[in-house]
Amino acid sequence: MAHIKPRTLSGFMELLPPRQVQFDRMVEILRKSYSLYGFTPLDTPAIEAAEVLLAKGGGETEKQIYRFTKGDTDLALRFDLTVPLAKYVALHQNELTFPFRRFQISKVYRGERAQKGRYREFYQADIDVIGDGALDITNEAEIPAIIYKTFTALGLRRFKIRVNNRKVLNGLFAILGLENQAGDVMRTIDKLEKIGPEKVKAILTDDFAVPAQAADQLLSLLSAADPMAALEPFRGQNELFDQGVAELSTVAKYMSAFGVPEDHFMVDLTIARGLDYYTGTVYETVMLDHPEVGSICSGGRYDNLAEYYTEKQLPGVGISIGLTRLFSVLEAQGYLNDDLITAPADVLVLPMTEDLTAAISFATSLREAGVRAQLYTEKKKFKQKLSYADKLSIPFAALLGEDEIAQGKVTVKDLSTGVQETLPPAEAAALVRSALAARAGGAPIREP
Amino acid sequence: MAHIKPRTLSGFMELLPPRQVQFDRMVEILRKSYSLYGFTPLDTPAIEAAEVLLAKGGGETEKQIYRFTKGDTDLALRFDLTVPLAKYVALHQNELTFPFRRFQISKVYRGERAQKGRYREFYQADIDVIGDGALDITNEAEIPAIIYKTFTALGLRRFKIRVNNRKVLNGLFAILGLENQAGDVMRTIDKLEKIGPEKVKAILTDDFAVPAQAADQLLSLLSAADPMAALEPFRGQNELFDQGVAELSTVAKYMSAFGVPEDHFMVDLTIARGLDYYTGTVYETVMLDHPEVGSICSGGRYDNLAEYYTEKQLPGVGISIGLTRLFSVLEAQGYLNDDLITAPADVLVLPMTEDLTAAISFATSLREAGVRAQLYTEKKKFKQKLSYADKLSIPFAALLGEDEIAQGKVTVKDLSTGVQETLPPAEAAALVRSALAARAGGAPIREP
Repeated sequence: MAHIKPRTLSGFMELLPPRQVQFDRMVEILRKSYSLYGFTPLDTPAIEAAEVLLAKGGGETEKQIYRFTKGDTDLALRFDLTVPLAKYVALHQNELTFPFRRFQISKVYRGERAQKGRYREFYQADIDVIGDGALDITNEAEIPAIIYKTFTALGLRRFKIRVNNRKVLNGLFAILGLENQAGDVMRTIDKLEKIGPEKVKAILTDDFAVPAQAADQLLSLLSAADPMAALEPFRGQNELFDQGVAELSTVAKYMSAFGVPEDHFMVDLTIARGLDYYTGTVYETVMLDHPEVGSICSGGRYDNLAEYYTEKQLPGVGISIGLTRLFSVLEAQGYLNDDLITAPADVLVLPMTEDLTAAISFATSLREAGVRAQLYTEKKKFKQKLSYADKLSIPFAALLGEDEIAQGKVTVKDLSTGVQETLPPAEAAALVRSALAARAGGAPIREP
Repeated sequence: MAHIKPRTLSGFMELLPPRQVQFDRMVEILRKSYSLYGFTPLDTPAIEAAEVLLAKGGGETEKQIYRFTKGDTDLALRFDLTVPLAKYVALHQNELTFPFRRFQISKVYRGERAQKGRYREFYQADIDVIGDGALDITNEAEIPAIIYKTFTALGLRRFKIRVNNRKVLNGLFAILGLENQAGDVMRTIDKLEKIGPEKVKAILTDDFAVPAQAADQLLSLLSAADPMAALEPFRGQNELFDQGVAELSTVAKYMSAFGVPEDHFMVDLTIARGLDYYTGTVYETVMLDHPEVGSICSGGRYDNLAEYYTEKQLPGVGISIGLTRLFSVLEAQGYLNDDLITAPADVLVLPMTEDLTAAISFATSLREAGVRAQLYTEKKKFKQKLSYADKLSIPFAALLGEDEIAQGKVTVKDLSTGVQETLPPAEAAALVRSALAARAGGAPIREP
């Protein structure tokens, strides 16, 4: 028979089993962490009407989207989880209770040119709080706590959450007379870390006609050691600015009550996060030892989630983790904790007699005790059977030969130490359980 | 602004939050149950090269598949989890250890004509064991145990697992001289339950030229109260038949050791499960009170998983649950246990003072204790705040007014009983935890 060459498309992550276990563990921790903050899980279709997904339209989205017809329906794959959320909230607005807090961890699709670190299918892990007409600032203040708790639960320690407020930036531009260049100025100061203050000043003054004095004021403010204090002298000149400063103060004020340590949080006036969507607090999260990765968790406050679908004013705040990319970064940097058990089973049960009843009964009792057990009954030599356990890193083997069966016992062998013990089945199960409990403590991320 | 009408495509399940929580709980139980039997999780791309997915080609699949191009690549969405598994195993055969046991719970896509109970996007929950060249019969004997354990864990009790063996059927047809009509005979006896033995006999003899004596022998065998005993007289005439009977005996023999009660398992010689794929044991699972639903978990043994991709002989055995359809059946029949907590949070924390520090600190301590807490800080009247908790079925409210804060306490109100108590934060958290633990016991399915 002629064969079709089996292959996985470029830009699509497909993991081998041990890595998949690590990935799934991260997803489980995210689910649990988001749940602790009162977010409910959501799962929307991957396919939507193209018209619905492209309601906003324009730019990169139209180019990257996977769009196709079936029958005479114009369909597309979701390219993020925000647009499906907007559709969901608009569609079900009378059945939902606001503020509506949801998380969704799902695959999204972007037909980008494939390149290292870019995926065409990737998981996003999003949370959003959607208000009905209004949404209190406390929701914005809570976001850094969720980011902190989530990454800490994953095992990451050396990261920092950077927070800014778009009202502060826009108010500041108004105060400095830079409203007309706001977009250009924002994009330029976004490069501050990369190119340094002198070059930023040159671009601002030469390319965008920012007066030298305004550029200096802006740059000294952006690089202030204490940004909140540096903002103080500008207060009272612009309503939007004052409101932004008040919001930023509130967010900073409650960090400690929310359990975020001081060294994991900072106000950073250079954070902008795009131009036309966010309207209040914005967030970025960086790995201290890998700034080159960029933000691993970003988001912000917006004023109107579903303006393309409904009259209803739906302000919200949300963040997103690009989980597939984060996982590939963690793997490449050696951050994945390979000490955690990734084997498909905890015990490989090896019958040594023709009748399998005793071995099967023991496997059944292990499973009833919550221990993951696999029966191995292939016709192989004993050495090959142990080698199977070894290749899969299964921590224990259970041997049931005639002697064991006659005594009503089972021999449990710890495959990492080689130590073995012959015990009644219930004791054997207890032994394995306690050994597994001792090994189960670690987080999926381990910094080197 | 002109609005796009928000809508979800017909044939795509999109759940409201309480139902989504129930669905997710079922998925979690399936994952845990499959894991207990040594299956490792897998996640393959939803999009594959069309050529790869359609390697087998033909029939309904080509009509139903979502196929499209991006750039000059011919792509398609997976229509099941078996073909992607075949690709995965063929592609990664040198990195996998056999027998390879994997589960996958993922969405698949079929552009069928939409009708009640048919979905175009739906979850399948599959397990498969893949051998390298050979696979021991014990793997086939274990499958009913996994089915039993899984549905029991979900809370279903009134179901039966029906097992047959394709070798028995094919051997029997050879013995009765019906090899040439095998397909037609198989399809006809599949209707036995629906149309009764007389009509089946008429079709067999009139339409397919089955001799009356052979039809009688077949029908009496198929309706035998003890199928294994009824097969006995046919032994020694056909090698395939004898092998099938031996396999079926082995499967039946170990049911009790695998923990499957007698009343949940039966050999049913009428089960066929399609024609050209399965080669040994086949499985169906029916709800005793809803036979009209058909099989809710089916599968079987096959000889060659990946013949379209590789020379390597990969026999296997697997089963699949159509989870989206099952969920819709359970919902329609009132089988979903609505007593389980589906609220997004366990406690709604209600600050009653301007400064929120005490309320936030209490919410933080609840989360650290593993209790799901939501802060409610919207500017609403107290009654509206309690009504928010009520609408979401949040079981507890925690009130922090000036009195509580002055005493270093918090008032916890059980919203189902109205009983409230003012306690130190740690005691309040403990109170909530133990109340939640008492309510957390149920399974997601509850038979009426």
